[in-house]
Amino acid sequence: MAIQLIGYPISTCTLRVVATLKELGVSYEITPPSDFSELKTPEYLATKHPFGKIPVLIDDGFKIYESRAIIRYLVNKYQGKNNSTVLIPSDVQKAGLVEQFISVEISYYDEAVHKLVAQEVFTKFHGKTPDPEIVKEARVEIGKVLDVYEKLLEGKDYLTGEFSLADISHYPYTYYSFSSGHGDLWEKRPNVARWWKNISEREIWKGIVAELNQK
Amino acid sequence: MAIQLIGYPISTCTLRVVATLKELGVSYEITPPSDFSELKTPEYLATKHPFGKIPVLIDDGFKIYESRAIIRYLVNKYQGKNNSTVLIPSDVQKAGLVEQFISVEISYYDEAVHKLVAQEVFTKFHGKTPDPEIVKEARVEIGKVLDVYEKLLEGKDYLTGEFSLADISHYPYTYYSFSSGHGDLWEKRPNVARWWKNISEREIWKGIVAELNQK
Ligand SMILES: N[C@@H](CCC(=O)N[C@@H](CS)C(=O)NCC(=O)O)C(=O)O
Ligand SMILES: N[C@@H](CCC(=O)N[C@@H](CS)C(=O)NCC(=O)O)C(=O)O
Repeated sequence: MAIQLIGYPISTCTLRVVATLKELGVSYEITPPSDFSELKTPEYLATKHPFGKIPVLIDDGFKIYESRAIIRYLVNKYQGKNNSTVLIPSDVQKAGLVEQFISVEISYYDEAVHKLVAQEVFTKFHGKTPDPEIVKEARVEIGKVLDVYEKLLEGKDYLTGEFSLADISHYPYTYYSFSSGHGDLWEKRPNVARWWKNISEREIWKGIVAELNQK
Repeated sequence: MAIQLIGYPISTCTLRVVATLKELGVSYEITPPSDFSELKTPEYLATKHPFGKIPVLIDDGFKIYESRAIIRYLVNKYQGKNNSTVLIPSDVQKAGLVEQFISVEISYYDEAVHKLVAQEVFTKFHGKTPDPEIVKEARVEIGKVLDVYEKLLEGKDYLTGEFSLADISHYPYTYYSFSSGHGDLWEKRPNVARWWKNISEREIWKGIVAELNQK
């Protein structure tokens, strides 16, 4: 039975799961809710996600929600089955550093970048105009976070040295920052620019972006 | 060489790590920074935590920061070594549900409870007066989250059925909600109350609280 992924291909949290599925070579079927209001129906809350969110993954009857829990589950279950891509190494210290950078993404990176993407993408999506003051503030905050990344990425191709689940976790918001015209913040920092180039030029990610742009 | 934990015993993120170390029966030494301003010194940023935070753990020369990354690392490395406590089961689905509830804690629980604790504990700690309006709002938000937990905990003693790292992750903020007089929100929901009783009456947690109260 194929894996069922409940979500929208364009949603940031869903994209994180899609990238992981494709990197692991796992096939799946995506089933988008009819619209956002479906997520708050008693039925969806009772049977899919109790907090009314996407994504939710169903793997042969086993249901799991929360994007970062889903991607760890997928790695635990499928890594090494269909290809040789390693997203969480078996070495305990290396795996620890993958988790460290996933937490850095949640705690500092997403916080800043989300503020920008909420204005530039989500506000526009809902037919409203972004607030230039908030965009300006967000750019300053992102700059500070990227200054730290610039040091962390010194001499490294990926956050932990090797491509991992931590890099995948950074795809969605960074992608939308670029697509809304703010890529300069990444590009003017050489180590950060090299890192983004390394991860965004992977064939799998390019394929995902090409699909997004067809829609 | 003993594990070194950089942090303050009273800090929520440090408490999460302390509870995990003790549950796994791993000995450690806690080394508190001289004060919060130390966290922003060039030296601390360059050698301890690049975002200027606690906790940081150093295990025989291996350094790792971010509380939830640290606790996963500790489980991966030490689970089963010194006692038989299981915090992340080896079964892939059960481990997935532990991660699901850790993410639920970060995404919905902490968000609401942090708002309360920031007012009632941190504001007071800094010699200021909590804002009653924010406290009121936070109580409403916590109530909504706990209504969902009440359903999730139906017929269960712990979030995933068995005691796990997901329960541990909930200790710090819940503890401070009770200690600042807001335990009624938990106590009036029977399943939530039973869950909190189950985890807060563990000998290890009671020992940690007793130590906190001595200081
Ligand atoms: N912590 C959750 C966040 C899920 C989330 O916020 N999903 C968004 C889409 S990216 C959503 O469902 N929004 C609809 C809503 O909140 O009503 C995860 O990582 O899966
Ligand atoms: N995501 C981090 C959060 C760390 C954090 O915010 N620590 C607080 C103490 S609980 C801190 O260092 N505060 C001092 C500061 O921000 O200056 C973790 O889970 O470790």
